[in-house]
Amino acid sequence: MKKSIFYHAGCPVCISAEHDIISLIGLENVEIIHLGNDKNKIEDAEKAGVMSVPALVTPNGNVLHINFGASIEDVKN
Amino acid sequence: MKKSIFYHAGCPVCISAEHDIISLIGLENVEIIHLGNDKNKIEDAEKAGVMSVPALVTPNGNVLHINFGASIEDVKN
Repeated sequence: MKKSIFYHAGCPVCISAEHDIISLIGLENVEIIHLGNDKNKIEDAEKAGVMSVPALVTPNGNVLHINFGASIEDVKN
Repeated sequence: MKKSIFYHAGCPVCISAEHDIISLIGLENVEIIHLGNDKNKIEDAEKAGVMSVPALVTPNGNVLHINFGASIEDVKN
């Protein structure tokens, strides 16, 4: 199965959601991307439709915005 | 493993998220509750911390609010 991608930015809400997602779907099924550390991935995230973090992009391309840590605009700063 | 509980209210955002969640974690790992049809479960959802639907309550009790379909207040009407 194609992996999901979990985008986050290191905020407490993100870390909590990351633990939950890994517990639910398994670390082997998800790629974790920290947009604060990996700012060159922000454009990919935006193209995928990510508007806030944490967010999970599913293998079929849907975006699940989970709770609310920060807007993608805030991550750019 | 204790099941997660997915609360929704039949809205298009809910249905889309429901399909994604079932695809990601497996139908056997999640109980689906339609709060529009099952209004006596609204109190349980609120006690669990659900503020909007769709939302996933994980086995350890965390609430993942996924995208935004409707507030829990709207579901009461």
